[in-house]
Amino acid sequence: MSKVFAVIMAGGSGTRFWPASRAKRPKQLLPLLGAADAETMLGATVRRLAPLIEPDSVYVVTGRPLVDASRAALPGVPAAQILAEPAARNTAPCIAWASATIARTDPDAVLAVLPADHHIEDEAAFRDVLGRAIASARAGRVTTIGVVPTRAETGYGYIEVGADVEGGAKEVARFVEKPDKARAEAFFTGKKHLWNAGMFFFRAKDMLALVRAHLPELADGVAKIDEAARAGREEAALEEIFPTLPRVSIDHGVMEKAPGLAVVPGSFGWNDVGSWQSAWELAPKDAHGNALPEGAIALEASSNIVKLLGNSHKTVALLGVSDLIVVDTGDALLVMPRERAQDVRDVVDALTKADRSDVL
Amino acid sequence: MSKVFAVIMAGGSGTRFWPASRAKRPKQLLPLLGAADAETMLGATVRRLAPLIEPDSVYVVTGRPLVDASRAALPGVPAAQILAEPAARNTAPCIAWASATIARTDPDAVLAVLPADHHIEDEAAFRDVLGRAIASARAGRVTTIGVVPTRAETGYGYIEVGADVEGGAKEVARFVEKPDKARAEAFFTGKKHLWNAGMFFFRAKDMLALVRAHLPELADGVAKIDEAARAGREEAALEEIFPTLPRVSIDHGVMEKAPGLAVVPGSFGWNDVGSWQSAWELAPKDAHGNALPEGAIALEASSNIVKLLGNSHKTVALLGVSDLIVVDTGDALLVMPRERAQDVRDVVDALTKADRSDVL
Repeated sequence: MSKVFAVIMAGGSGTRFWPASRAKRPKQLLPLLGAADAETMLGATVRRLAPLIEPDSVYVVTGRPLVDASRAALPGVPAAQILAEPAARNTAPCIAWASATIARTDPDAVLAVLPADHHIEDEAAFRDVLGRAIASARAGRVTTIGVVPTRAETGYGYIEVGADVEGGAKEVARFVEKPDKARAEAFFTGKKHLWNAGMFFFRAKDMLALVRAHLPELADGVAKIDEAARAGREEAALEEIFPTLPRVSIDHGVMEKAPGLAVVPGSFGWNDVGSWQSAWELAPKDAHGNALPEGAIALEASSNIVKLLGNSHKTVALLGVSDLIVVDTGDALLVMPRERAQDVRDVVDALTKADRSDVL
Repeated sequence: MSKVFAVIMAGGSGTRFWPASRAKRPKQLLPLLGAADAETMLGATVRRLAPLIEPDSVYVVTGRPLVDASRAALPGVPAAQILAEPAARNTAPCIAWASATIARTDPDAVLAVLPADHHIEDEAAFRDVLGRAIASARAGRVTTIGVVPTRAETGYGYIEVGADVEGGAKEVARFVEKPDKARAEAFFTGKKHLWNAGMFFFRAKDMLALVRAHLPELADGVAKIDEAARAGREEAALEEIFPTLPRVSIDHGVMEKAPGLAVVPGSFGWNDVGSWQSAWELAPKDAHGNALPEGAIALEASSNIVKLLGNSHKTVALLGVSDLIVVDTGDALLVMPRERAQDVRDVVDALTKADRSDVL
């Protein structure tokens, strides 16, 4: 049976977790949901794949400045399988390049492409769904996982499901952009729409064929890199060609155009951990809804999240405050209301304008 | 003309500025109103006396654990003039002991007793009032300074003034406890009441006579210490006797009972800096009322105070929050509303109950 590889997309440089996340320490390299010394989200992503996919069958695609930190977070993953993009070009070039790399030795290999920075509550249920998606991909169908909605969420893209196919999978009727509230309500009650969690499964050769069909310019570029790699000079070709590849997502560039896609529905407590608000939602909380470091004092304080990074022995005291985000990283301190979690971008923008790359 | 000495009462172990203030670093040893590397309040107290009283004529009375830090804050004050109390017994024993100590060499010396942790905006005006109070004391009247009220404050004690005496001083009609709001309003409009700022001026021998008259037990104890000091064995006597002296304030024990007191009214921007609220009031603020460290980012944030101690290069970002106190000392972080500044005691109590002497 053909081999299965995980390809972890770990290039994100999210600013939504500033000051915890930085250019050189993005979200996936943080222990966002645990104590300061807990495992990174990237580490958790790889750990929970076993025994379905062991670390020596994991590839990670990341940016060059993050290679060392990614290796440190993943001691079980062979160093040569941490692929460094010379430039960030969105997900289609990333996936096409990884597919070509694995196809060089095994075109029939099945790839499980997974984001590096999501949270999964029920890991056993996740592996079960993962197994079905891999089986579907092995049978020659490009397959995705669709998360069964638990609320009328407007922040995610959706997948409309069609007829049943074998093995618990369904046909993908279409991909749907983030809906407004009314449509999200309709999706939630209609039960024909799943959340697009950005997880894709396919044989390496199938993805390369799809890229050739829908993104020929990308296919040409990746073919040149592949040719150079076969001749033992991938580095130079990568440096020259990768930054010129079309900047396009796998969703828009391939998935939304390709026919015959399958989706495996799943319920495993998924969360994309998109903001400090989701970090609060996922964190263990005291009786008053506070997610606090150990030893913190909270008096008449409710529904706050306080996160310490790099100084976990600090004593935190809250009195008479509610619904705040407080993040302390040693060199930076953020205080804002939870309901404005998305607006941390404005802080990052202000720091960028003030030339404060020292804390970005 | 008899010599003038300042006696700075620097024994306070206030908890109202936690986490900045600690048992071993109380308020007077903090740069509460400036940058993290600004002068301490004790340092400012001594600095602003010159040229009226130079540092070599300054005595400081403090607790033993604070002697080293007090010396470090006051390089110009002779080390032998930093007097260490073996135990805190309130202000009457402190002042009686300092008076006896100075009277040993110069019973006619004039003492200016001043708190170590108050803020004075107009230092030249203060020195002018100080000069008048010293002159009044030199003429044999025990004298205090009364601050002309700028509002109907309920948080201070008051001094009711009587007839004029020479040199701009007035008779003290009586000392008045902290009033309720209605009385405070009446005091403010009546213009016959001044704030008691806890500053006292007298000849050493006059204070010793008052203590003998009104607190004979204290006078006996201090006489024994003085006798031992004359025999070159003050340390042992201090250790034995000082902790047994009556625990009483100079206000209740002497001033409220003594006849013929004078008060010099003054307006010099006085503030006893009693809480983080007063620290905010006194601090330089941006256009939105925020008192922030240099380089801080404040977006849609107003009337907050953020104080960093021991980590002054930290980048602070506030977004969408108002009227907060945020204090970060490296080992502790406090967040609370400004209007609840007094309740920081509750945090200190909770930490005490939790046996957290490491941060107290």
